[in-house]
Amino acid sequence: MDFQKLALQYKQELLENVVPFWLNKSQDEQFGGYFSCLDREGNVFDTDKFIWLQAREVWMFSMLYNRVEQKPEWLECARQGGEFLKKYGHDGFGNWYFSLTREGKPLIQPYNIFSYTFAAMAFAQLGLATGNQEYTNLAKTTYDRILERQENPKGRYNKAYPGTRHLKNFALPMIMCNLNLEMEHILGADYVKESATKLMDEVLNVFYRPECGLVVENVNEDGSLSDTFDGRLLNPGHAIEAMWFIMDLAERMDKKDIIEQAQQITLQTLKHGWDEKYGGIFYFMDAKNRPPQQLEWDQKLWWVHIESLISLLKGYRLTGSKESLEWFEKVHQYTWAYFKDEQYPEWYGYLNRQGDVSLNLKGGKWKGCFHVPRGLYQCWQTLESIAK
Amino acid sequence: MDFQKLALQYKQELLENVVPFWLNKSQDEQFGGYFSCLDREGNVFDTDKFIWLQAREVWMFSMLYNRVEQKPEWLECARQGGEFLKKYGHDGFGNWYFSLTREGKPLIQPYNIFSYTFAAMAFAQLGLATGNQEYTNLAKTTYDRILERQENPKGRYNKAYPGTRHLKNFALPMIMCNLNLEMEHILGADYVKESATKLMDEVLNVFYRPECGLVVENVNEDGSLSDTFDGRLLNPGHAIEAMWFIMDLAERMDKKDIIEQAQQITLQTLKHGWDEKYGGIFYFMDAKNRPPQQLEWDQKLWWVHIESLISLLKGYRLTGSKESLEWFEKVHQYTWAYFKDEQYPEWYGYLNRQGDVSLNLKGGKWKGCFHVPRGLYQCWQTLESIAK
Repeated sequence: MDFQKLALQYKQELLENVVPFWLNKSQDEQFGGYFSCLDREGNVFDTDKFIWLQAREVWMFSMLYNRVEQKPEWLECARQGGEFLKKYGHDGFGNWYFSLTREGKPLIQPYNIFSYTFAAMAFAQLGLATGNQEYTNLAKTTYDRILERQENPKGRYNKAYPGTRHLKNFALPMIMCNLNLEMEHILGADYVKESATKLMDEVLNVFYRPECGLVVENVNEDGSLSDTFDGRLLNPGHAIEAMWFIMDLAERMDKKDIIEQAQQITLQTLKHGWDEKYGGIFYFMDAKNRPPQQLEWDQKLWWVHIESLISLLKGYRLTGSKESLEWFEKVHQYTWAYFKDEQYPEWYGYLNRQGDVSLNLKGGKWKGCFHVPRGLYQCWQTLESIAK
Repeated sequence: MDFQKLALQYKQELLENVVPFWLNKSQDEQFGGYFSCLDREGNVFDTDKFIWLQAREVWMFSMLYNRVEQKPEWLECARQGGEFLKKYGHDGFGNWYFSLTREGKPLIQPYNIFSYTFAAMAFAQLGLATGNQEYTNLAKTTYDRILERQENPKGRYNKAYPGTRHLKNFALPMIMCNLNLEMEHILGADYVKESATKLMDEVLNVFYRPECGLVVENVNEDGSLSDTFDGRLLNPGHAIEAMWFIMDLAERMDKKDIIEQAQQITLQTLKHGWDEKYGGIFYFMDAKNRPPQQLEWDQKLWWVHIESLISLLKGYRLTGSKESLEWFEKVHQYTWAYFKDEQYPEWYGYLNRQGDVSLNLKGGKWKGCFHVPRGLYQCWQTLESIAK
C-alpha cells in the first residue's frame, strides 16, 4: 500500500474540498456563528443553530490553525463562531443550550450534556489559537459543570422513574477520554493521567463485555448486563470511535496492553457490525439479535465509517496488525465510493442499507463541520506517520 | 368491485388471523397486562410494557366485545389488561406513566399526553363492556386531566425555551376528534357537539393549509406557518388518519360540507405522500421539499397504509367519490402485498422505501394490538355498509 499517496489523498480532500466548503458556505456574516443546515450544493435550507455543531466548528477551525497552518481566515472563522457561542450559547451560569435561533435566542433548554462537552473542547482549542485567557477560562468552567452534572446528565429532563432501572450510559465516559486529552494543557498532566486510568477501565472493563466481545451502550449501575432494549443496544460506530480515543490516551500513558486491547475490540466490533450483504457498517444492532427500536438501524452513516478508518489506521500504526490494515482498505473503499459526492463538495451523511443516498444534505441538525474534516485530518496524519 | 367479498376478506383477516394472534400470544398470565414486543412468530422478545399499547389492547378487546360479538374470552382479555393498567399505569393522581416493567413498576415518567388519551379511550370502552362504573369514572377523570394539561402537554419535560418559538401541535386536537366520539356516552351529546365544532375548525382551518393543500404537524401560536423543521413537517399518514376521525364527527353532526372537505384532503395528502417510484406512502416529508430531520422519512409503515384505507373507504361511502375508490384499490393492493405476512400471523410494521421488511417484529414499542385490527374492523364495517 502506498501510504504516502494515500496520505496525500486524505490531505487534499481535507484542504481543497471539505475545509473550503465550510469556510465559504457556513459562516453567518449577519449574526455570527454558522449555518449547519446546508443542502447538497451548500445552500442554507434552515437557519437554526445547534450548539453541538456550532462548538464543533469552532474547534475544527481552531485545531486546523493550531496544527496545520496559521491561516488568518481559519482563525477568524473560529473566533467569530466562538464569540457567537460565548454570547448566546449558555444561560450565564455555564449551562449550554441545545439550540438557538439564527439570531441567538435560546430554542431548546440545556438538557444535553454533550452541548457542554463540545463547548469545552471548542474553547480549549480556541484559547490555544488566540492566547485569549477568557476562552480558556470558559473551557475550564464548562469542564467543571460537566463533572457536576455527570451523575445525572439530563437533570430535570430525565424521564426515567427513579429507582426502577438505573442504567449507566457509555457516551459520556467515551467522550471524556477524548476531552481530557484535548484539555490537557488546561487540566494538567497529572489530572489527565489519573482520570485516564479510571476512564479506560470504565470503557474496557464495564461497557466492553467479554462474554460477547462487544461494547454495549448501557449497563446496570453495578456493571452487569441489562436484558432490555437499552441494555442490548449496540452502536458499532460509537464503540469503534471510542477505541481511537482509548488508543490516543493509552499511547500518551504508554500502555501497550491497552492499545492492543483497543485494536482488538475495533476489529471485533467491525466484524460484528459489517453488513455482509451490501457492505458498510450498521448504525444500531441488538446484542441478542432481537429487533432494535431504532428504525434507522440498518442505515449507513458517514461518521461511523470515517471514525472506523481512524481507529483502524491507528491500530495498524501502533500494533502493526495486518488485519487492521486489510479492514482499513475495505472500509476505505466503501467510504470513498459511497459517501464522497463526486459532483459537489463535502460528503453525503445518510445512506440506506443498499448504499443509496437517503438524505443528500451536506449538513443538518447532526452533521456539521466535524467528523469528515476531523477524520480526514486524523487519517492524513496517521498515514504520514506510517509512511515515515 | 365486489364489496361483499372484500368485506369478508377484511373480516376473516381480523377474526381468524389478527385477533387470535393477540389473544393467544400477548397476554401475560403471570403479571397481567400484555406483552407487546412479539417477534415474527409471536414469541416475546422484550417484556417492557408501554402504556399506549396496554391501553390500546384493552380498548380493542372491549370494542370487539361491544360491537362484534360478546365472547367471554375477549371480555376477560380486556378486563385483565384493564386491571393491570388501573393498578400500575398511573401515579394515583391520574398521571399515566409512559412505560412499566413487566411486573408493573414505573419506568418512564408521565411525560406523554397520549398515554392519557389511550387510557381514557380504553376505560370508556371497558366501562361499556363490563358495566363497571369504576372504569367509566377512571375514563372521565383521565379525560379531565387531558384538558388540564392540553396547553402544555409535556409539562416539566418540555425542553422548548419559553417564549422563543411557541408551536401548536396537530396530534392532540386530531386525537381528541376521535376520543370525544369514543366517550360520547360519558361526555354527553351536547358537549361532543360543541367541542366537535372547535376541533374540526382547528384541524381544517388551522393545521390544514390551503396554500399547499396539506396538513402540517405544527403551526405558530397565531396559526401562521412556521418556516422551521417542525413547522415544515408533514406526516401524511397522520393527516389522512385525522380525516376519518373528522368524517366520523361530521357524519354524527350531519355536516356534509365538512365530509366533502375531509375526503378531498385525504386525496390531496395521499397524492402528495405517494411514492411514485416504489409505491407506498412516505412516513415524513418537508412541506418545502427540504431534507427532513427524520432518518426514517422514506420508510413505509403499517399504520399509515391501514389508516389510509379507512379514510378512502369512508370518503367513498359518504361522498361516492370514484377517485377515492380508485385510490382505495391502489393502497389496498400495496398494503396486502407488502404488509401481510403470508407465513406467520399478523402483519409486518416496518418496510424500507423499496418495500422490503426492515424489522420483522409483529409488535414492539409502538406497534401493538391496535392499527391492524382496528383498520380491518373499520374497513370490514364500511365495506359491508357500502355493499348494502
